[in-house]
Amino acid sequence: MELLKKYNIALADELKKIVQIKEPEQLYEPIQYIVNIGGKRLRPILTLLTCDFFGTDFKKAMPAALAIELFHNFSLIHDDIMDKAPLRRGKETVHEKWDLNTGILSGDAMLILAYQLFEEYEPELFRELAKLFSKTAIEVCEGQQYDVDFEDRDDVTIDEYIKMIDYKTAVLLGAAMKMGAIVAGASESCKENMYKFGRNLGIAFQLQDDYLDVFGNPESFGKQVGGDIIENKKTFLYLTALNKSETIQAEELEHLYTINPREPSGKIETVTRIFKNSGAAEATQAEISKYTNKANELLEQIKISEEKKTELREFGEWLMKRTF
Amino acid sequence: MELLKKYNIALADELKKIVQIKEPEQLYEPIQYIVNIGGKRLRPILTLLTCDFFGTDFKKAMPAALAIELFHNFSLIHDDIMDKAPLRRGKETVHEKWDLNTGILSGDAMLILAYQLFEEYEPELFRELAKLFSKTAIEVCEGQQYDVDFEDRDDVTIDEYIKMIDYKTAVLLGAAMKMGAIVAGASESCKENMYKFGRNLGIAFQLQDDYLDVFGNPESFGKQVGGDIIENKKTFLYLTALNKSETIQAEELEHLYTINPREPSGKIETVTRIFKNSGAAEATQAEISKYTNKANELLEQIKISEEKKTELREFGEWLMKRTF
Repeated sequence: MELLKKYNIALADELKKIVQIKEPEQLYEPIQYIVNIGGKRLRPILTLLTCDFFGTDFKKAMPAALAIELFHNFSLIHDDIMDKAPLRRGKETVHEKWDLNTGILSGDAMLILAYQLFEEYEPELFRELAKLFSKTAIEVCEGQQYDVDFEDRDDVTIDEYIKMIDYKTAVLLGAAMKMGAIVAGASESCKENMYKFGRNLGIAFQLQDDYLDVFGNPESFGKQVGGDIIENKKTFLYLTALNKSETIQAEELEHLYTINPREPSGKIETVTRIFKNSGAAEATQAEISKYTNKANELLEQIKISEEKKTELREFGEWLMKRTF
Repeated sequence: MELLKKYNIALADELKKIVQIKEPEQLYEPIQYIVNIGGKRLRPILTLLTCDFFGTDFKKAMPAALAIELFHNFSLIHDDIMDKAPLRRGKETVHEKWDLNTGILSGDAMLILAYQLFEEYEPELFRELAKLFSKTAIEVCEGQQYDVDFEDRDDVTIDEYIKMIDYKTAVLLGAAMKMGAIVAGASESCKENMYKFGRNLGIAFQLQDDYLDVFGNPESFGKQVGGDIIENKKTFLYLTALNKSETIQAEELEHLYTINPREPSGKIETVTRIFKNSGAAEATQAEISKYTNKANELLEQIKISEEKKTELREFGEWLMKRTF
């Protein structure tokens, strides 16, 4: 997306500066490594773009944007340990490339470095940003804990699932946007609407990720199609399919989510069929639309020009289509 | 020590309030557990006491004191994982009682909760406290990394060792005291001297810990006497003994620090003898005095009453004698 180029270039420069390796190297090397693995820098871009949209030079939001990106990468390092993930974006995860202790300690340091970035701001702004950051960070931890808990539970409700993805993923998108609005000095109601816009978009975004994991195009979807099915992840699709299925089909689905076949293609095929036939696939699409529409309604209430609203709406659409 | 009772009682009450268990329980239970294991609450007491000594109600320093204690407990959880420690103050460590993931995630949450405590203060104070906290927290991470690095190195210098214990232990004591001075609105020079006082005392305190590990009274020393020798820890005693010994004795010592006998009493005896004969024991005592004297010199420059200086000096002495 053309709009994002200037943010991406500025971000790359600034990220380079803040992740320089110093003594002790074993602490700072993994930080540089995980940040360089990259990704789309979606979250910090949201911060810069929101600041820009409220008419303030986006560079003023750079420290907050960098804090968001460091926090996101901190959570990736620690989540990868918890998930025993060997790879992240096709590269070795930190605890694989180094070891467990390095993963824990470098992650801890990144969380603290994120807080330090807010020191660039005057006291009032510093406090407001750090407060939002802490609240969000705790919610992300809680979301991760719910995700871990859900693995061992077979009575997860759809509401609980939505809360989990809200905390684990969406609140950080909301906070990223709100920080841009805070730095730009937007009104309380604009800040709040921006936050909710990002949060609703975040939920839609995560539901879309669940959907694409099963129905995405293997060529363009970044991860292995069917990955969640192989891992028996209780996603929105799975929980909805259980709810919508007759007893026999529900039991079949539940059974399929207890096995780990060496050759999973048969399992993936059957589960995908149940997701379709039960109406879960359709219901997921409807849910995505629900949250996308909520986000767009909130956008209407924000005091920025129509032109900028259109850009934001297009940005949201681009986001949702990114992995088709 | 009589002086400390009022702080201890107030701290216990407040700690109870901030570590209440809520959803998700798996995240908050371990936080309550580690805080309840207790310990001497040395660090938060330093914060309260310093605030008190500058003539401000110590309760004003409570949120900062609690932040210091939460941070300390966060670092215990993560350090215990890194050290594979089964026990902490005679109780199961968090990763043993629960699991690795719980240890990582609850630790992360504690670090964030610590930051949130500063939100009790107005923006200027919030910024000053959070800034000192972040700087200190990063140094503690660096100290922990140096400690990990030193395990695999056989060329650690005494200066490097002092830097490691300074970062891993002493800076937090300095910061704990400085925070008390900040909250009390002390002058820049008083804040700085208080910081240095705590930091020098902290180094003396850690050297004393090294010393007592070998020469302490088994009845009153909290840990197993000889524990560092069993674990081949390169402490100040060890590094000094190596420096002060003739080649043959140095080689014997180095050899002893590569073995892990099932029955360690013979090894402990020989190493203890080398520590004495080489003059390392005496040199450690001299080094402890050096840092204690530095601390007391700094105290002279702080603008509090002579009476309070005497109390602080006595507190320092009590601290140093605590495990004899």
